[in-house]
Amino acid sequence: MPDHATHVPADTKDALAKRLRRIEGQVRGLQKMVDEERYCADILIQIASVQEALRSVGKLLLQNHLTHCVTGAMRSGEPAETKRVVDEIVELWGK
Amino acid sequence: MPDHATHVPADTKDALAKRLRRIEGQVRGLQKMVDEERYCADILIQIASVQEALRSVGKLLLQNHLTHCVTGAMRSGEPAETKRVVDEIVELWGK
Amino acid sequence: MPDHATHVPADTKDALAKRLRRIEGQVRGLQKMVDEERYCADILIQIASVQEALRSVGKLLLQNHLTHCVTGAMRSGEPAETKRVVDEIVELWGK
Amino acid sequence: MPDHATHVPADTKDALAKRLRRIEGQVRGLQKMVDEERYCADILIQIASVQEALRSVGKLLLQNHLTHCVTGAMRSGEPAETKRVVDEIVELWGK
Repeated sequence: MPDHATHVPADTKDALAKRLRRIEGQVRGLQKMVDEERYCADILIQIASVQEALRSVGKLLLQNHLTHCVTGAMRSGEPAETKRVVDEIVELWGK
Repeated sequence: MPDHATHVPADTKDALAKRLRRIEGQVRGLQKMVDEERYCADILIQIASVQEALRSVGKLLLQNHLTHCVTGAMRSGEPAETKRVVDEIVELWGK
Repeated sequence: MPDHATHVPADTKDALAKRLRRIEGQVRGLQKMVDEERYCADILIQIASVQEALRSVGKLLLQNHLTHCVTGAMRSGEPAETKRVVDEIVELWGK
Repeated sequence: MPDHATHVPADTKDALAKRLRRIEGQVRGLQKMVDEERYCADILIQIASVQEALRSVGKLLLQNHLTHCVTGAMRSGEPAETKRVVDEIVELWGK
Protein backbone atom coordinates (compact mmCIF):
# COMPACT_ATOMS: atom_id res chain seq x y z
CA MET A 1 0.00 0.00 0.00
CA PRO A 2 1.37 3.45 -0.88
CA ASP A 3 2.49 5.90 1.77
CA HIS A 4 -0.89 7.40 2.29
CA ALA A 5 -0.26 10.31 4.67
CA THR A 6 0.63 12.70 1.90
CA HIS A 7 -2.52 12.13 -0.14
CA VAL A 8 -5.23 13.91 1.83
CA PRO A 9 -5.28 17.68 1.28
CA ALA A 10 -5.89 19.63 4.51
CA ASP A 11 -9.19 21.09 3.35
CA THR A 12 -10.56 17.67 2.42
CA LYS A 13 -9.48 16.31 5.81
CA ASP A 14 -11.19 19.21 7.60
CA ALA A 15 -14.38 18.75 5.59
CA LEU A 16 -14.45 15.01 6.35
CA ALA A 17 -13.81 15.57 10.08
CA LYS A 18 -16.54 18.22 10.28
CA ARG A 19 -19.12 16.09 8.50
CA LEU A 20 -18.33 13.04 10.62
CA ARG A 21 -18.73 15.06 13.84
CA ARG A 22 -22.14 16.19 12.58
CA ILE A 23 -23.06 12.58 11.80
CA GLU A 24 -21.97 11.56 15.32
CA GLY A 25 -24.35 14.21 16.65
CA GLN A 26 -27.14 12.87 14.43
CA VAL A 27 -26.59 9.35 15.79
CA ARG A 28 -26.79 10.68 19.37
CA GLY A 29 -30.01 12.42 18.31
CA LEU A 30 -31.33 9.04 17.16
CA GLN A 31 -30.57 7.58 20.61
CA LYS A 32 -32.51 10.41 22.23
CA MET A 33 -35.47 9.83 19.87
CA VAL A 34 -35.51 6.13 20.80
CA ASP A 35 -35.18 6.95 24.50
CA GLU A 36 -38.11 9.38 24.31
CA GLU A 37 -40.10 6.81 22.30
CA ARG A 38 -40.70 9.19 19.43
CA TYR A 39 -42.88 8.11 16.52
CA CYS A 40 -41.15 5.28 14.60
CA ALA A 41 -41.66 6.82 11.15
CA ASP A 42 -39.96 10.04 12.34
CA ILE A 43 -36.97 8.02 13.56
CA LEU A 44 -36.86 6.16 10.22
CA ILE A 45 -36.75 9.52 8.40
CA GLN A 46 -33.82 10.55 10.61
CA ILE A 47 -32.01 7.28 9.86
CA ALA A 48 -32.45 7.92 6.11
CA SER A 49 -30.93 11.36 6.67
CA VAL A 50 -27.85 9.87 8.40
CA GLN A 51 -27.50 7.34 5.57
CA GLU A 52 -27.54 10.20 3.06
CA ALA A 53 -24.91 12.10 5.07
CA LEU A 54 -22.67 9.01 5.14
CA ARG A 55 -23.10 8.56 1.38
CA SER A 56 -21.99 12.13 0.97
CA VAL A 57 -18.86 11.55 3.10
CA GLY A 58 -18.21 8.42 1.02
CA LYS A 59 -18.36 10.44 -2.18
CA LEU A 60 -15.85 12.98 -0.87
CA LEU A 61 -13.50 10.18 0.19
CA LEU A 62 -13.93 8.39 -3.13
CA GLN A 63 -13.13 11.57 -5.01
CA ASN A 64 -9.94 11.97 -3.00
CA HIS A 65 -9.13 8.29 -3.39
CA LEU A 66 -9.54 8.36 -7.18
CA THR A 67 -7.69 11.64 -7.61
CA HIS A 68 -4.69 10.66 -5.52
CA CYS A 69 -4.30 6.97 -4.63
CA VAL A 70 -5.90 5.49 -7.74
CA THR A 71 -4.21 7.89 -10.12
CA GLY A 72 -0.89 7.04 -8.48
CA ALA A 73 -1.49 3.31 -8.76
CA MET A 74 -2.52 3.56 -12.40
CA ARG A 75 0.43 5.72 -13.32
CA SER A 76 2.80 3.28 -11.65
CA GLY A 77 2.32 1.09 -14.71
CA GLU A 78 2.24 -2.03 -12.53
CA PRO A 79 -0.71 -4.20 -13.59
CA ALA A 80 -1.00 -5.74 -10.09
CA GLU A 81 -1.33 -2.28 -8.53
CA THR A 82 -4.00 -1.26 -11.04
CA LYS A 83 -5.87 -4.52 -10.48
CA ARG A 84 -5.74 -4.04 -6.71
CA VAL A 85 -7.27 -0.54 -6.72
CA VAL A 86 -9.86 -1.51 -9.35
CA ASP A 87 -10.99 -4.55 -7.36
CA GLU A 88 -11.29 -2.45 -4.19
CA ILE A 89 -13.61 0.06 -5.85
CA VAL A 90 -15.71 -2.57 -7.64
CA GLU A 91 -16.13 -4.45 -4.35
CA LEU A 92 -17.50 -1.28 -2.69
CA TRP A 93 -19.88 -0.46 -5.58
CA GLY A 94 -23.53 -0.64 -4.61
CA LYS A 95 -22.91 -1.17 -0.89
CA MET B 1 -50.65 10.63 15.62
CA PRO B 2 -51.40 7.86 18.10
CA ASP B 3 -50.10 7.90 21.65
CA HIS B 4 -46.80 6.34 20.79
CA ALA B 5 -45.17 5.77 24.19
CA THR B 6 -46.92 2.48 24.74
CA HIS B 7 -45.88 0.90 21.47
CA VAL B 8 -42.19 0.12 21.95
CA PRO B 9 -41.57 -3.07 23.95
CA ALA B 10 -38.71 -2.72 26.46
CA ASP B 11 -36.52 -5.32 24.77
CA THR B 12 -36.86 -3.65 21.37
CA LYS B 13 -35.99 -0.30 22.95
CA ASP B 14 -32.91 -1.79 24.62
CA ALA B 15 -31.80 -3.45 21.39
CA LEU B 16 -32.18 -0.17 19.46
CA ALA B 17 -30.30 1.83 22.11
CA LYS B 18 -27.46 -0.69 22.22
CA ARG B 19 -27.06 -0.80 18.43
CA LEU B 20 -27.13 2.98 18.14
CA ARG B 21 -24.41 3.31 20.81
CA ARG B 22 -22.29 0.87 18.82
CA ILE B 23 -22.92 2.90 15.65
CA GLU B 24 -21.90 6.09 17.49
CA GLY B 25 -18.64 4.31 18.38
CA GLN B 26 -18.16 3.32 14.75
CA VAL B 27 -18.61 6.93 13.62
CA ARG B 28 -15.99 8.05 16.17
CA GLY B 29 -13.77 5.32 14.75
CA LEU B 30 -14.25 6.86 11.30
CA GLN B 31 -13.13 10.24 12.65
CA LYS B 32 -10.00 8.63 14.06
CA MET B 33 -9.27 6.94 10.73
CA VAL B 34 -9.59 10.27 8.91
CA ASP B 35 -7.43 11.99 11.52
CA GLU B 36 -4.72 9.34 11.16
CA GLU B 37 -5.01 9.57 7.35
CA ARG B 38 -5.68 5.90 6.96
CA TYR B 39 -6.03 4.40 3.49
CA CYS B 40 -9.19 5.77 1.80
CA ALA B 41 -10.49 2.38 0.66
CA ASP B 42 -10.29 1.09 4.25
CA ILE B 43 -12.33 4.07 5.44
CA LEU B 44 -14.86 3.46 2.64
CA ILE B 45 -15.22 -0.17 3.82
CA GLN B 46 -15.89 1.11 7.34
CA ILE B 47 -18.52 3.56 6.03
CA ALA B 48 -20.27 0.67 4.23
CA SER B 49 -20.26 -1.21 7.53
CA VAL B 50 -21.93 1.71 9.36
CA GLN B 51 -24.51 1.97 6.55
CA GLU B 52 -25.28 -1.73 6.98
CA ALA B 53 -25.65 -1.30 10.77
CA LEU B 54 -28.05 1.61 10.24
CA ARG B 55 -30.08 -0.44 7.77
CA SER B 56 -30.32 -3.13 10.41
CA VAL B 57 -31.57 -0.63 13.02
CA GLY B 58 -34.06 0.63 10.43
CA LYS B 59 -35.38 -2.91 9.92
CA LEU B 60 -35.91 -3.41 13.65
CA LEU B 61 -37.73 -0.09 13.88
CA LEU B 62 -39.83 -0.85 10.80
CA GLN B 63 -40.80 -4.21 12.26
CA ASN B 64 -41.94 -2.52 15.45
CA HIS B 65 -43.67 0.22 13.47
CA LEU B 66 -45.62 -2.25 11.32
CA THR B 67 -46.50 -4.55 14.20
CA HIS B 68 -47.78 -1.79 16.48
CA CYS B 69 -48.43 1.62 14.92
CA VAL B 70 -49.43 0.44 11.44
CA THR B 71 -51.57 -2.43 12.69
CA GLY B 72 -53.33 0.01 15.01
CA ALA B 73 -53.95 2.51 12.23
CA MET B 74 -55.27 -0.15 9.87
CA ARG B 75 -57.55 -1.65 12.48
CA SER B 76 -58.96 1.79 13.28
CA GLY B 77 -60.95 1.44 10.07
CA GLU B 78 -60.34 5.12 9.25
CA PRO B 79 -59.23 5.39 5.60
CA ALA B 80 -57.29 8.63 6.29
CA GLU B 81 -55.27 6.90 9.02
CA THR B 82 -54.48 3.95 6.74
CA LYS B 83 -53.50 6.30 3.93
CA ARG B 84 -51.24 8.27 6.26
CA VAL B 85 -49.22 5.27 7.47
CA VAL B 86 -49.05 3.76 3.96
CA ASP B 87 -47.73 7.00 2.47
CA GLU B 88 -45.09 7.29 5.21
CA ILE B 89 -43.71 3.83 4.49
CA VAL B 90 -43.79 4.20 0.70
CA GLU B 91 -41.98 7.53 1.02
CA LEU B 92 -39.17 5.84 2.98
CA TRP B 93 -38.86 2.88 0.56
CA GLY B 94 -35.54 2.74 -1.23
CA LYS B 95 -33.92 5.55 0.75
CA MET C 1 -52.17 -16.45 1.15
CA PRO C 2 -55.32 -14.40 0.55
CA ASP C 3 -57.24 -14.53 -2.72
CA HIS C 4 -55.16 -11.91 -4.39
CA ALA C 5 -56.88 -11.37 -7.72
CA THR C 6 -59.36 -8.88 -6.34
CA HIS C 7 -56.80 -6.59 -4.74
CA VAL C 8 -55.20 -4.79 -7.70
CA PRO C 9 -57.29 -1.90 -9.00
CA ALA C 10 -57.38 -1.72 -12.81
CA ASP C 11 -55.63 1.65 -12.98
CA THR C 12 -52.76 0.43 -10.78
CA LYS C 13 -52.41 -2.67 -12.92
CA ASP C 14 -52.31 -0.57 -16.10
CA ALA C 15 -49.74 1.78 -14.62
CA LEU C 16 -47.52 -1.14 -13.55
CA ALA C 17 -47.79 -2.83 -16.96
CA LYS C 18 -46.98 0.40 -18.78
CA ARG C 19 -43.94 1.16 -16.62
CA LEU C 20 -42.60 -2.38 -16.93
CA ARG C 21 -42.89 -2.27 -20.73
CA ARG C 22 -40.91 0.97 -20.68
CA ILE C 23 -38.28 -0.69 -18.45
CA GLU C 24 -38.10 -3.64 -20.86
CA GLY C 25 -37.37 -1.12 -23.62
CA GLN C 26 -34.67 0.51 -21.49
CA VAL C 27 -33.01 -2.88 -20.94
CA ARG C 28 -33.02 -3.51 -24.71
CA GLY C 29 -31.48 -0.06 -25.08
CA LEU C 30 -28.71 -1.15 -22.70
CA GLN C 31 -28.03 -4.19 -24.90
CA LYS C 32 -27.74 -1.92 -27.92
CA MET C 33 -25.33 0.38 -26.05
CA VAL C 34 -23.14 -2.59 -25.13
CA ASP C 35 -23.29 -3.95 -28.67
CA GLU C 36 -22.24 -0.56 -30.08
CA GLU C 37 -19.49 -0.32 -27.43
CA ARG C 38 -20.73 2.99 -26.16
CA TYR C 39 -18.78 4.80 -23.45
CA CYS C 40 -18.95 2.79 -20.18
CA ALA C 41 -19.90 5.75 -17.99
CA ASP C 42 -22.87 6.51 -20.26
CA ILE C 43 -24.06 2.91 -19.94
CA LEU C 44 -23.64 3.13 -16.15
CA ILE C 45 -25.83 6.26 -16.12
CA GLN C 46 -28.48 4.34 -18.09
CA ILE C 47 -28.30 1.44 -15.63
CA ALA C 48 -28.86 3.88 -12.73
CA SER C 49 -31.90 5.18 -14.61
CA VAL C 50 -33.36 1.67 -14.95
CA GLN C 51 -32.70 1.04 -11.23
CA GLU C 52 -34.61 4.22 -10.40
CA ALA C 53 -37.51 3.17 -12.65
CA LEU C 54 -37.64 -0.24 -10.93
CA ARG C 55 -37.62 1.43 -7.50
CA SER C 56 -40.56 3.51 -8.65
CA VAL C 57 -42.49 0.40 -9.76
CA GLY C 58 -41.64 -1.17 -6.39
CA LYS C 59 -43.10 1.85 -4.58
CA LEU C 60 -46.35 1.61 -6.52
CA LEU C 61 -46.61 -2.11 -5.78
CA LEU C 62 -45.76 -1.57 -2.11
CA GLN C 63 -48.45 1.08 -1.85
CA ASN C 64 -50.99 -1.32 -3.30
CA HIS C 65 -49.71 -4.14 -1.11
CA LEU C 66 -49.99 -2.08 2.08
CA THR C 67 -53.36 -0.61 1.21
CA HIS C 68 -55.00 -3.92 0.30
CA CYS C 69 -53.17 -7.11 1.31
CA VAL C 70 -51.51 -5.80 4.49
CA THR C 71 -54.58 -3.93 5.68
CA GLY C 72 -56.61 -7.10 5.16
CA ALA C 73 -54.12 -9.24 7.06
CA MET C 74 -53.95 -6.80 9.96
CA ARG C 75 -57.71 -6.46 10.18
CA SER C 76 -58.08 -10.25 10.22
CA GLY C 77 -56.96 -10.07 13.85
CA GLU C 78 -54.86 -13.21 13.39
CA PRO C 79 -51.39 -12.62 14.89
CA ALA C 80 -49.80 -15.17 12.52
CA GLU C 81 -51.17 -13.31 9.49
CA THR C 82 -49.90 -9.97 10.80
CA LYS C 83 -46.49 -11.48 11.56
CA ARG C 84 -46.31 -12.99 8.06
CA VAL C 85 -46.94 -9.72 6.21
CA VAL C 86 -44.68 -7.75 8.57
CA ASP C 87 -41.79 -10.18 8.07
CA GLU C 88 -42.20 -10.05 4.30
CA ILE C 89 -41.92 -6.27 4.22
CA VAL C 90 -39.01 -6.09 6.68
CA GLU C 91 -37.16 -8.72 4.63
CA LEU C 92 -37.49 -6.55 1.51
CA TRP C 93 -36.40 -3.32 3.27
CA GLY C 94 -33.14 -1.92 1.97
CA LYS C 95 -32.83 -4.36 -0.93
CA MET D 1 -13.91 11.15 -25.03
CA PRO D 2 -11.35 8.48 -25.92
CA ASP D 3 -11.87 6.12 -28.83
CA HIS D 4 -13.91 3.66 -26.90
CA ALA D 5 -14.43 0.80 -29.33
CA THR D 6 -11.10 -0.81 -28.56
CA HIS D 7 -11.60 -0.92 -24.81
CA VAL D 8 -14.17 -3.69 -24.32
CA PRO D 9 -12.64 -7.17 -24.47
CA ALA D 10 -14.83 -9.66 -26.38
CA ASP D 11 -15.45 -11.88 -23.35
CA THR D 12 -16.62 -8.92 -21.23
CA LYS D 13 -18.91 -7.81 -24.05
CA ASP D 14 -20.39 -11.30 -24.34
CA ALA D 15 -20.89 -11.56 -20.59
CA LEU D 16 -22.65 -8.17 -20.50
CA ALA D 17 -24.90 -9.06 -23.47
CA LYS D 18 -25.84 -12.40 -21.94
CA ARG D 19 -26.68 -10.91 -18.54
CA LEU D 20 -28.74 -8.12 -20.08
CA ARG D 21 -30.75 -10.60 -22.15
CA ARG D 22 -31.48 -12.53 -18.95
CA ILE D 23 -32.54 -9.28 -17.24
CA GLU D 24 -34.84 -8.49 -20.18
CA GLY D 25 -36.43 -11.91 -19.63
CA GLN D 26 -36.83 -11.17 -15.92
CA VAL D 27 -38.59 -7.89 -16.73
CA ARG D 28 -40.97 -9.72 -19.06
CA GLY D 29 -41.55 -12.17 -16.21
CA LEU D 30 -42.51 -9.22 -14.01
CA GLN D 31 -45.08 -8.11 -16.60
CA LYS D 32 -46.56 -11.61 -16.58
CA MET D 33 -46.73 -11.61 -12.77
CA VAL D 34 -48.56 -8.28 -12.82
CA ASP D 35 -50.89 -9.48 -15.57
CA GLU D 36 -51.73 -12.62 -13.60
CA GLU D 37 -52.19 -10.51 -10.44
CA ARG D 38 -49.69 -12.53 -8.49
CA TYR D 39 -49.13 -11.76 -4.81
CA CYS D 40 -47.51 -8.29 -4.45
CA ALA D 41 -44.76 -9.40 -2.07
CA ASP D 42 -43.67 -12.08 -4.56
CA ILE D 43 -43.45 -9.46 -7.31
CA LEU D 44 -41.45 -7.20 -4.97
CA ILE D 45 -39.00 -10.06 -4.34
CA GLN D 46 -38.61 -10.45 -8.12
CA ILE D 47 -37.98 -6.72 -8.52
CA ALA D 48 -35.24 -6.92 -5.86
CA SER D 49 -33.71 -9.77 -7.84
CA VAL D 50 -33.64 -7.69 -11.06
CA GLN D 51 -32.10 -4.78 -9.12
CA GLU D 52 -29.36 -7.13 -7.89
CA ALA D 53 -28.74 -8.42 -11.42
CA LEU D 54 -28.41 -4.85 -12.71
CA ARG D 55 -25.99 -4.00 -9.89
CA SER D 56 -23.94 -6.98 -10.96
CA VAL D 57 -23.87 -5.79 -14.59
CA GLY D 58 -22.89 -2.34 -13.30
CA LYS D 59 -19.96 -3.84 -11.41
CA LEU D 60 -18.69 -5.64 -14.49
CA LEU D 61 -18.95 -2.45 -16.53
CA LEU D 62 -17.27 -0.41 -13.81
CA GLN D 63 -14.42 -2.89 -13.64
CA ASN D 64 -13.93 -2.59 -17.40
CA HIS D 65 -14.28 1.19 -17.22
CA LEU D 66 -11.66 1.53 -14.46
CA THR D 67 -9.24 -0.94 -16.04
CA HIS D 68 -9.35 0.62 -19.50
CA CYS D 69 -10.91 4.08 -19.84
CA VAL D 70 -9.95 5.43 -16.41
CA THR D 71 -6.45 4.02 -16.47
CA GLY D 72 -5.97 5.59 -19.90
CA ALA D 73 -7.25 8.96 -18.73
CA MET D 74 -5.05 8.95 -15.63
CA ARG D 75 -1.97 7.93 -17.54
CA SER D 76 -2.58 10.70 -20.06
CA GLY D 77 -1.23 13.06 -17.42
CA GLU D 78 -3.87 15.64 -18.32
CA PRO D 79 -5.48 16.96 -15.10
CA ALA D 80 -8.73 17.81 -16.94
CA GLU D 81 -9.04 14.23 -18.20
CA THR D 82 -8.43 12.82 -14.72
CA LYS D 83 -10.95 15.23 -13.21
CA ARG D 84 -13.54 14.27 -15.83
CA VAL D 85 -13.37 10.53 -15.19
CA VAL D 86 -13.22 11.03 -11.40
CA ASP D 87 -16.31 13.27 -11.42
CA GLU D 88 -18.22 10.75 -13.54
CA ILE D 89 -17.58 7.92 -11.09
CA VAL D 90 -18.29 10.01 -7.98
CA GLU D 91 -21.56 11.18 -9.54
CA LEU D 92 -22.65 7.57 -10.03
CA TRP D 93 -21.66 6.46 -6.50
CA GLY D 94 -24.59 5.37 -4.36
CA LYS D 95 -27.16 5.53 -7.17
